[in-house]
Amino acid sequence: MESAIPAHLETPRTRHKRVPDDYQPPYPSFVARYKPAVSRVVMAYFGVQYGGAAPAAAMDALKEIAGLFAVDGGPSHWDRARYVDQCACENVVTVAYWDDLARFNAWFARAREMWTGRKREGVGTFIEVLRPSVARHETLFSSPDRPEGIAVAAEGMSGEVQEHAYWGGMRDRLPLSQTDAMAPGGAPELIHDGARLRVVAHDNLCLIRSGQDWSDTAASERKLYLDDVEPVLREGMDFLRDDGLTIGCYANRYMQVLAADGSVSEKSYGQSWWKSLAALERWAESHPTHVKIFGAAMKYLSTLGPSAKLRLYHEVTVAAADEQFFEYLNCHPKTGMLTAVETVGA
Amino acid sequence: MESAIPAHLETPRTRHKRVPDDYQPPYPSFVARYKPAVSRVVMAYFGVQYGGAAPAAAMDALKEIAGLFAVDGGPSHWDRARYVDQCACENVVTVAYWDDLARFNAWFARAREMWTGRKREGVGTFIEVLRPSVARHETLFSSPDRPEGIAVAAEGMSGEVQEHAYWGGMRDRLPLSQTDAMAPGGAPELIHDGARLRVVAHDNLCLIRSGQDWSDTAASERKLYLDDVEPVLREGMDFLRDDGLTIGCYANRYMQVLAADGSVSEKSYGQSWWKSLAALERWAESHPTHVKIFGAAMKYLSTLGPSAKLRLYHEVTVAAADEQFFEYLNCHPKTGMLTAVETVGA
Repeated sequence: MESAIPAHLETPRTRHKRVPDDYQPPYPSFVARYKPAVSRVVMAYFGVQYGGAAPAAAMDALKEIAGLFAVDGGPSHWDRARYVDQCACENVVTVAYWDDLARFNAWFARAREMWTGRKREGVGTFIEVLRPSVARHETLFSSPDRPEGIAVAAEGMSGEVQEHAYWGGMRDRLPLSQTDAMAPGGAPELIHDGARLRVVAHDNLCLIRSGQDWSDTAASERKLYLDDVEPVLREGMDFLRDDGLTIGCYANRYMQVLAADGSVSEKSYGQSWWKSLAALERWAESHPTHVKIFGAAMKYLSTLGPSAKLRLYHEVTVAAADEQFFEYLNCHPKTGMLTAVETVGA
Repeated sequence: MESAIPAHLETPRTRHKRVPDDYQPPYPSFVARYKPAVSRVVMAYFGVQYGGAAPAAAMDALKEIAGLFAVDGGPSHWDRARYVDQCACENVVTVAYWDDLARFNAWFARAREMWTGRKREGVGTFIEVLRPSVARHETLFSSPDRPEGIAVAAEGMSGEVQEHAYWGGMRDRLPLSQTDAMAPGGAPELIHDGARLRVVAHDNLCLIRSGQDWSDTAASERKLYLDDVEPVLREGMDFLRDDGLTIGCYANRYMQVLAADGSVSEKSYGQSWWKSLAALERWAESHPTHVKIFGAAMKYLSTLGPSAKLRLYHEVTVAAADEQFFEYLNCHPKTGMLTAVETVGA
């Protein structure tokens, strides 16, 4: 048993963790381990948005960004997912990962100009970037042998960690929680830069990406997941998308991961932006929509026991104000962090 | 909105509460407020145990203790409840409350000799007393207008308090949590004193009494409670009674409150002894039996909304070692805190 907080990020505490030192989680979980030299990680979400059938400009954009990923300074890993939003628009989001901020910074300027620097016919584009210090970021995996998301950029996985399977584990896994309550500061603001809209959020904005992978499940387990768990999960995701603002959730996307050939895979993830880690904690712990998800997942996992082949993971970042970047071009006002600011004219 | 911790028990914190200062609970709850001069409260459980029909000695004992309650120094309030235990024995437990330790101490010696000082034909008797400092004790009520248990000895009820409706609220309501993790110390020990068995537990032993009162519910709400909630509650109570030791629950009784005329009322409570507050927290937050109870209660309350007439309350004590007293005479080895120590011969 090891701590989710790597040894080199342990600091004298001014804040306690929520469980006693002899706490034993009831089942194993694992976290991504970066090389100790890694001080910041980067996840950059490049979205393209359109209504109806995919315009040629959308296809071009996806090809171009993939091309840019391949040049020097590009990400060590990227993935792609799709999502039909509340305005019935298709959104294809390509997510790229770095474990070296200087490398990302040198690479990014050209990509930004390419992505949101010029309008593309019939499509909107957006960029959402977090580049947190490793103290402001945590992951959790049900199995140590298939990393997803930013964890692919890590050196490997931990052994079994202690801080999970209780409410508050997410906070306790964040190294910064040793000394900081991570309270949010201020409100998101909108900046017009020609046709580009930038959102400047605030200290301690929180991003969670929470994923599931049912590709290894056999018939009966798959049926149980798709019939009993997925609909409840979708209901919660829809609530966050449509009514999240009332509880501090700025935006939510329930994404289908795409395979390399562009087809829909048997993986999905919810990606949501929150006013604070505390707001996310309250939803997860006590909102009826998540209590239902939690209940369905518990029933599923207790029915299957250790034979369950469903894989679960999440990554959570509580970003400082200067670790965030949100830019939207020609997107509708319910796109990502635009939802958090006053609706604007075209 | 006020803190559950009364102003005169606020101390400079070395430990944080689990929610930010601007946390707003989604529905109102209330706590008992003692007079600021009250430094300790006392709850004394006097049990009588027998198999089959009530022996005359049991009836005599109940009359005698009621008589003693009426003498000078007796409790300001008492109630009575019954419970058929896992050995199919009837247990009738009379609970008395004081807000003055000196008064209780002066009164108790005679009661103890009367209750566990001599064997009664065909019955076992036991005494379980907690006399916590007010910093080690908290209550919670869904309505402010009908106190139960120790709260009847309080001066009144608070206004709406902040620290509830989130996991960790119980700990945050305990004034001692401002500075102390309340970790358990040591293991319970058995002491033979002639035929009397005393259990000396350990620092930070935890007692929760968690009650429900459906006497005000009309037909459809009553049916919902009795059909959908009560069976799930009973299942959880049975788990704690039969298998609680595996998760740090020493003993649990699911009691039916008796009316003044001895008939069964429409009130019940679970009363359980725990190795630590942390063990109780883990069960409540993540054990399948309590997750089911929580889910059933949430569904019930969200169906009924503010029109619900069901009343809920609890009281929790985390007792210092010298604030506890457990004594058993002629009881079976699965009685109360005897469950926590090695089974002993007659």
